[in-house]
Amino acid sequence: MSLNPTLPSAPAAPALTPEDLGVGARFTIAVMDGDFARIIVDALAAADSTDLVVVTDPVSTLVRGSEQRVLEYLSDVIAGASRGGHHVTASLLLSRGCPGEVTCSTTPGLLAEAAAVPVLPATGIRASAHWSLYPLDDTGRPGETPDHLRDIYEAIDYAKELGAYVRGEHYATLLEGDLADVLGAVAAGWVLVGRSVQHVTSHATLSIASPSEAAR
Amino acid sequence: MSLNPTLPSAPAAPALTPEDLGVGARFTIAVMDGDFARIIVDALAAADSTDLVVVTDPVSTLVRGSEQRVLEYLSDVIAGASRGGHHVTASLLLSRGCPGEVTCSTTPGLLAEAAAVPVLPATGIRASAHWSLYPLDDTGRPGETPDHLRDIYEAIDYAKELGAYVRGEHYATLLEGDLADVLGAVAAGWVLVGRSVQHVTSHATLSIASPSEAAR
Repeated sequence: MSLNPTLPSAPAAPALTPEDLGVGARFTIAVMDGDFARIIVDALAAADSTDLVVVTDPVSTLVRGSEQRVLEYLSDVIAGASRGGHHVTASLLLSRGCPGEVTCSTTPGLLAEAAAVPVLPATGIRASAHWSLYPLDDTGRPGETPDHLRDIYEAIDYAKELGAYVRGEHYATLLEGDLADVLGAVAAGWVLVGRSVQHVTSHATLSIASPSEAAR
Repeated sequence: MSLNPTLPSAPAAPALTPEDLGVGARFTIAVMDGDFARIIVDALAAADSTDLVVVTDPVSTLVRGSEQRVLEYLSDVIAGASRGGHHVTASLLLSRGCPGEVTCSTTPGLLAEAAAVPVLPATGIRASAHWSLYPLDDTGRPGETPDHLRDIYEAIDYAKELGAYVRGEHYATLLEGDLADVLGAVAAGWVLVGRSVQHVTSHATLSIASPSEAAR
């Protein structure tokens, strides 16, 4: 804990929930087959949503909960939708530190706590992704110097450790590997930057079983 | 033009190209049908790519050029892929002010110029979108006070004028309307915030002809 004790509203030992911290995701899965609706509905229904709030609307599915559970759920759903062998894409938005909308202001006392980097079991499904990571303020922890570039480099090193980092490209970083390692790299960047920046988002577009990938 | 004349590298009247400014997009289209590959390839081939650099890889398509031309191209391709009536989703990343990778540093002298808000002809295709807008620094123009929240509110007002704004939701803003107005709102936010923040990105996940939308 590193909350500023001079803040009048800071409790002695607050138990900040994922909801307090604005931790969650939105994702949209696409299955390139006429039977897409059944495949997506089945994948959503089969994934373990314990301890999560999951709300699906016509554009995307909102998932709220701890970093580890949110990532396990995303991996379950995307893997489940991919097991039929069809080409699948998924767009993914991870957000923490801003419970509200596009114009949220950051809230003193809610500085992101150092969550552990989510660890995901291998899926056996190969994925590629274009990944973008956005640190959205520089408030930093009281008494510490914020350094989100340090944390971004740490995230890229972590992606390399997972074997998922391929290269930086225009506007995004290319990741490839087991779906669990690609999601793990995207999530690690989000969590690691969240250690020095309250509001951080991580976007990725994933591609699985693309025919143009197979043709290379 | 508002380049700082004291910068040693600032030419007298530089003609900054979209490439200099890092103006461009990445997008991934998904067509929920077994014939997806032909539909997407045909939509890409039929769209007018005059004055654009377009590179398709297994994850996404990169488009570089002026704001107006990039948006016209995106509207053409997404509308073209949607005309067959299948459920289509598209993930979209607009970026300006950072020609490089995830860890780019902003460059003095490349502060985004005030591009006009792209104007797009109606497509007759109804779209929904979850939209996120990211101002990524607060350098501002020399002699001016940066105020990206002012510009974000202006962007939201513009989305309301287009009739595309529905409401803010967790992590994103819901837009609905003609594809041209939804893309117009996403692009307007990007361009308007680009007037006070050098590096700004705008992400959207679009949904067209969703069966769950039709069932509402």
